[in-house]
Amino acid sequence: MTLSSLDNSALAAAETAVSARYDDLSRRNLVLDMTRGKPAPDQLDLSDGILTIVGPGETNGDDGEDYRNYGLGSGIPEAKRLFADFLKVAPDEIVIGGNSSLNLMYDAVAGAVLFGVPGSTRPWGAESPPKFLCPVPGYDRHFLICEKLGFEMIPVEMHGDGPDMDAVEALVARDPAIKAIWCVPKYSNPTGAVYSDRVVDRLATMAAAAPDFRIFWDNAYAEHHLGSGPARIKNILEACKAAGNPDRPLLFGSTSKITYAGAGVAVMGGSKANTADMAGKMSVANIGHDKINQLRHVRFFEDLDGIRAHMTNQAALIAPKFAAVDAALERHLAGKGIATWTKPEGGYFVSVDVLDGCAAEVVRLAGEAGVKLTPAGATHPKGKDPRDRNIRLAPTYPTLDEVKLSMEVFCACVELVCIRKLRAPA
Amino acid sequence: MTLSSLDNSALAAAETAVSARYDDLSRRNLVLDMTRGKPAPDQLDLSDGILTIVGPGETNGDDGEDYRNYGLGSGIPEAKRLFADFLKVAPDEIVIGGNSSLNLMYDAVAGAVLFGVPGSTRPWGAESPPKFLCPVPGYDRHFLICEKLGFEMIPVEMHGDGPDMDAVEALVARDPAIKAIWCVPKYSNPTGAVYSDRVVDRLATMAAAAPDFRIFWDNAYAEHHLGSGPARIKNILEACKAAGNPDRPLLFGSTSKITYAGAGVAVMGGSKANTADMAGKMSVANIGHDKINQLRHVRFFEDLDGIRAHMTNQAALIAPKFAAVDAALERHLAGKGIATWTKPEGGYFVSVDVLDGCAAEVVRLAGEAGVKLTPAGATHPKGKDPRDRNIRLAPTYPTLDEVKLSMEVFCACVELVCIRKLRAPA
Repeated sequence: MTLSSLDNSALAAAETAVSARYDDLSRRNLVLDMTRGKPAPDQLDLSDGILTIVGPGETNGDDGEDYRNYGLGSGIPEAKRLFADFLKVAPDEIVIGGNSSLNLMYDAVAGAVLFGVPGSTRPWGAESPPKFLCPVPGYDRHFLICEKLGFEMIPVEMHGDGPDMDAVEALVARDPAIKAIWCVPKYSNPTGAVYSDRVVDRLATMAAAAPDFRIFWDNAYAEHHLGSGPARIKNILEACKAAGNPDRPLLFGSTSKITYAGAGVAVMGGSKANTADMAGKMSVANIGHDKINQLRHVRFFEDLDGIRAHMTNQAALIAPKFAAVDAALERHLAGKGIATWTKPEGGYFVSVDVLDGCAAEVVRLAGEAGVKLTPAGATHPKGKDPRDRNIRLAPTYPTLDEVKLSMEVFCACVELVCIRKLRAPA
Repeated sequence: MTLSSLDNSALAAAETAVSARYDDLSRRNLVLDMTRGKPAPDQLDLSDGILTIVGPGETNGDDGEDYRNYGLGSGIPEAKRLFADFLKVAPDEIVIGGNSSLNLMYDAVAGAVLFGVPGSTRPWGAESPPKFLCPVPGYDRHFLICEKLGFEMIPVEMHGDGPDMDAVEALVARDPAIKAIWCVPKYSNPTGAVYSDRVVDRLATMAAAAPDFRIFWDNAYAEHHLGSGPARIKNILEACKAAGNPDRPLLFGSTSKITYAGAGVAVMGGSKANTADMAGKMSVANIGHDKINQLRHVRFFEDLDGIRAHMTNQAALIAPKFAAVDAALERHLAGKGIATWTKPEGGYFVSVDVLDGCAAEVVRLAGEAGVKLTPAGATHPKGKDPRDRNIRLAPTYPTLDEVKLSMEVFCACVELVCIRKLRAPA
């Protein structure tokens, strides 16, 4: 029975009960954190072999080049082969960056603002303002890049199979100042959505008013499944080539959530025109990224199968945490008409929509009980969720027991805030 | 006796002799390279212990934080302490970057172009155009950053103790579009000049028309002496603070030429306002640089004394190469009035000035004999040396025998080209 169908006295009784539950949890002086998508120590332990896998005398490449020295600014060939498989591009369609794909994305956007990209008639910064399509809910750091670099962010709704393509097509066809769209195509942050082939095809084939329109394809969770094996998504670069738009997609990935968060390797793939453009821009700023760390990754994984075996081991560690989140949501909130949530098969997040106007108060109340959550609104441009309903849960870093306890608090907060909302005078 | 004092027949005889020498060297099918400031393999070997110094179970910081995970975006505290000593700033006046100080400099300049710096009333990119003072001869990659980011480069002459400060002061006082100056204060690239206290003081105290004027203090060779111990230079941050210009200098350094070229650690120091500004800009692009590699450096060196002992060992390897360069120049060119050169006590280069109009031809001729040199003009903005006289020699990477052979070729080329110049009709 949904809470909205209860009469006032039944709602009052429900509030009393859940309030008692909340007070009880609050008295436990919890200090729990579900804010960010951080790997847990046991996940990181799986990569500890990487630390010493390249020792003295083992720093030359297959062709004899000394990777301790300058050179090979766009990456060592061994890493290009490994990560080309990872991104599903050719080894000459990839640039190896530093430790952060976010940094590559920032540099790609900033470079476009300053100089444009292949196909540009002028720098993106010459538009007043340039515009970026932002599927929501989405990744706060994507939006922050746009905000800082002067973009108008146009939200479009995320569906279960990707962004609302009717809206995307209509916008992109009409406005040449719309230069790009953010996409996290697999296990999207935060909903876990996996882009359908149909969405990939529409992105690849749609008409774009801007001749230099780009898809920022942040495949952050390419191999990050929860036990069922990585979802298959259609190859965006191939689809764009087939549609005659080979320069449209820029593909990003990293090992930040495969090996170490901060000591991984980041990559960008795309057409030869795009990767040459990126490599050229990079070469002005940096003589070359850390080739020894690239070599560590190659030696540690050997090939994509090595990465996949490793990620299956990680799945075994984090899947129970996602299951605990879902079990708590089902147990406390199912059928009450106050919340919906995603059931991701990979990635790092669960996305919860509560009643409109309730998300910020849920986060505040959980914080008072010692459970830190991602700020409400973080999944929207400029941190403003117009409906104040979306909350992102990040269950990987806490222990399983901590996840369970956090979810007890979270569910009590959702119920309490929503009941109060329903009881409030309209 | 200078060559210019010879009569025509004596010059002809000299040309015949040196031409024979050159032809003889040419027939040896040499393949030698003195183009870039790269460390030699034996220098790199000295750092091989760093590869495995952080092993499994050794990745936590002094305070217990797990450096395999996200966090500490501006660097681990241990690295801040070590590199603050290195830059001669306080541990809260430093930001730790990725593997490249050039990248930090690029980001600092690009960030100023896009957003300005503390004290700016508008982004540097709003000037039409912004201007950068470029002491010449200087570092080609500094100039390339300026060129790509739209700066007008104003050359000022380098003296033995730093840039021509009369020129610098007059320019900076007059023109608010002059936003910055490049400085390599110790063992300057390429002349090896060490800035005098007087120059440091004048840079710190001079009046600047731009309220957001910056000194890009690229202390690339802070500890890179050739055996006599590192030269002492006056502390630019302290001097600027004393002069009431605390935000004027941005200090850069890296371990690219201390440990591995490409797998080192880069740092930026400056006032708290500047480092907070840089950390803030960095945090939009990158969640944090490679903390494991920072930790490797801390564990490998422990402290500044550790770095200094290491650099004394490197000096022992490269000093003989610099001595061979100087010996060849003295033997072949001294007293002939066709070339002057520097005798650096550190750094990576020897700078040679030949007769005006001869540098490009010397480089071409040496190349034909199998000795690759840095392109003439590379030490000047846009690769144009207006007098076509400066050549940068980089003797560290080749073996000692290769350096000696390269210098035989180089000296023959200088003599040959200069004699031909003297013999040519005016």
